[in-house]
Amino acid sequence: MDKRSHRYCVIMCGGIGSRFWPYSRTRLPKQFIDFLGTGRTLLQMSYDRISNIIPAENIVIMTNGLYADLVREQLPMIAPSQILLEPARRNTAPCIAWAAWHIAARDSEASMIVTPADHVITREADFELSVLNGFEFVESHDALLTLGISPTRPETGYGYIQIGDVVQDGINKVKTFTEKPDHELAKVFVASGEFFWNSGIFLWRASAIREALRRWAPDVAGAFDAAAHEVYRDHAAETEFIDKAFPGCVGISIDYAVMERADNVYVETVTFGWNDLGTWSALYDLSPKNIEQNVTQNCNVLAYNCRGNIFAVRGDKLIVADGLEDYIVADADGVLLICPKAREQKIKQMFTDAKVKFGDKYE
Amino acid sequence: MDKRSHRYCVIMCGGIGSRFWPYSRTRLPKQFIDFLGTGRTLLQMSYDRISNIIPAENIVIMTNGLYADLVREQLPMIAPSQILLEPARRNTAPCIAWAAWHIAARDSEASMIVTPADHVITREADFELSVLNGFEFVESHDALLTLGISPTRPETGYGYIQIGDVVQDGINKVKTFTEKPDHELAKVFVASGEFFWNSGIFLWRASAIREALRRWAPDVAGAFDAAAHEVYRDHAAETEFIDKAFPGCVGISIDYAVMERADNVYVETVTFGWNDLGTWSALYDLSPKNIEQNVTQNCNVLAYNCRGNIFAVRGDKLIVADGLEDYIVADADGVLLICPKAREQKIKQMFTDAKVKFGDKYE
Repeated sequence: MDKRSHRYCVIMCGGIGSRFWPYSRTRLPKQFIDFLGTGRTLLQMSYDRISNIIPAENIVIMTNGLYADLVREQLPMIAPSQILLEPARRNTAPCIAWAAWHIAARDSEASMIVTPADHVITREADFELSVLNGFEFVESHDALLTLGISPTRPETGYGYIQIGDVVQDGINKVKTFTEKPDHELAKVFVASGEFFWNSGIFLWRASAIREALRRWAPDVAGAFDAAAHEVYRDHAAETEFIDKAFPGCVGISIDYAVMERADNVYVETVTFGWNDLGTWSALYDLSPKNIEQNVTQNCNVLAYNCRGNIFAVRGDKLIVADGLEDYIVADADGVLLICPKAREQKIKQMFTDAKVKFGDKYE
Repeated sequence: MDKRSHRYCVIMCGGIGSRFWPYSRTRLPKQFIDFLGTGRTLLQMSYDRISNIIPAENIVIMTNGLYADLVREQLPMIAPSQILLEPARRNTAPCIAWAAWHIAARDSEASMIVTPADHVITREADFELSVLNGFEFVESHDALLTLGISPTRPETGYGYIQIGDVVQDGINKVKTFTEKPDHELAKVFVASGEFFWNSGIFLWRASAIREALRRWAPDVAGAFDAAAHEVYRDHAAETEFIDKAFPGCVGISIDYAVMERADNVYVETVTFGWNDLGTWSALYDLSPKNIEQNVTQNCNVLAYNCRGNIFAVRGDKLIVADGLEDYIVADADGVLLICPKAREQKIKQMFTDAKVKFGDKYE
């Protein structure tokens, strides 16, 4: 068997994307939407990208039970046993743990890349080279590898990774993880050349992440160690076990549970044109603009005295706007949002406020 | 026969209301909408108001052919022969002329009130007294009477009437008609006590307006004089004649064609709580406001840092807005408008722009 057959990809697509509410909805999160108007959803684009380097039968989709039909519909080539349905939302650590236990049961020599489904990557050839390089590294080292993106601006919406000693060309030890910095600090980070954006894309051997989880998040690891290997090889048995065990896990991110604690954490610094599409501003930055710097997403717009806005409306709708500057105008399925880009960090809270006030009607 | 049986009312409801676009639409103009959330449309409220003083069989509805079904649906008590369908849009002079010829053929002693269907009147008892007073006057004078509203603010969106000599208590000769003044001039007008808002509500004997039209707008009068009295008494014959003759009339307002020229024009000064609902600001002023001075029309709103806005959305929709001040946000049937109240005079133009760019899709 060649190395390639031991390589796996885990695509995580269980999130709600509430920072993109109301365009992204609990019942139809952004990863299932043709966000860039390319004819493919973000999930499909993630699949297309990775299927160039990973055998189709080694691609595992992790999602919430709610989205089973959406995944089957959008990725009809994926076997049902390759779609793992989380029975509850528990952040990334339990999700990744399950994927690792599942893959390890299939293949004791497995290495894997873990990626969210909702990122945009513009230079796919560079992406492929970086990923192959990363696989080579984790297959020959006891390493948890994260991809660090060369920053192109002092973005305050991302986490940063400070690089330590060089291990080999393009791969360094991680010195620190830093949460979203303020603008001044972000400028210092970018100028230093030592800081890279934390992409949330990871590579490791299945055995390495299992060991790390057992050491740094024994509760999470314990939940999955409670089942024998055979359980993870039998789709029905696995589902039955997970439906009981998974909801008992604490909701914790893999960064917090493992990456920020372990001492075998490395970063591969990459430059493949990455955008996490985490916010409306991220989408705005990525999108073509007209002469007034307005971005129009899937809709007809008549704009008067408008500058720097993003207009996103689902359906065949007309927006007529006058006097808006640097706003998000998003309208979908019974909810209209009008919000300054500068206050987009509040959208998640607005989503929650709407839930408190109106129940799940506008979720 | 008592005087009452010779009194008629003409309700004009053929307009598009494009200054209220997109809430008011070519296919469903504002007069056919329950604009104030009272359970009655503006047309129905106009009918209810006038039916207290005018016999039901003497109420004539003038509208565009497009709205025949809407009128029949909303006023099922009105006989088909009382609904006159204009085959083309020709402003108020041809509309009023037709109504006058139609009524005169029915009743040579007829007097009539002509009123738009989309005004709001808050003090109905005062309205009734004013109208009865007006009827008495026109029945005993050769007079074209208009109702002038005592101004309560220096409104720049209305026409003004300057009063001349007193004829009797509450009724004066008209000195001048003035188009929409600027703010400074409007303040002078209001302070003077000599200027009243032009309501567009008229009273006269059918014979008086016919004479005036023959003198001041002979083209218009000629079009209707071309048919014999009998034609106007036979619904089918009248329809056939009008469908041919009406489109040939010039589009001209009754103010311009007659009122500003004739020398027997009088004004009755009234104070019955009137609003022409001509603009979003007019609706805003009329509506109850929350503590942040926002007005909400038929919709759920979550407003953050918002002041002085009017939110109007058809359907069971949620608006989430942040950082808007003194805006109109209106959403209906595939069109969303976001426009500062201060620029509402442009809405008519925006409506036209949308037509030029997208055809009749968003009309």
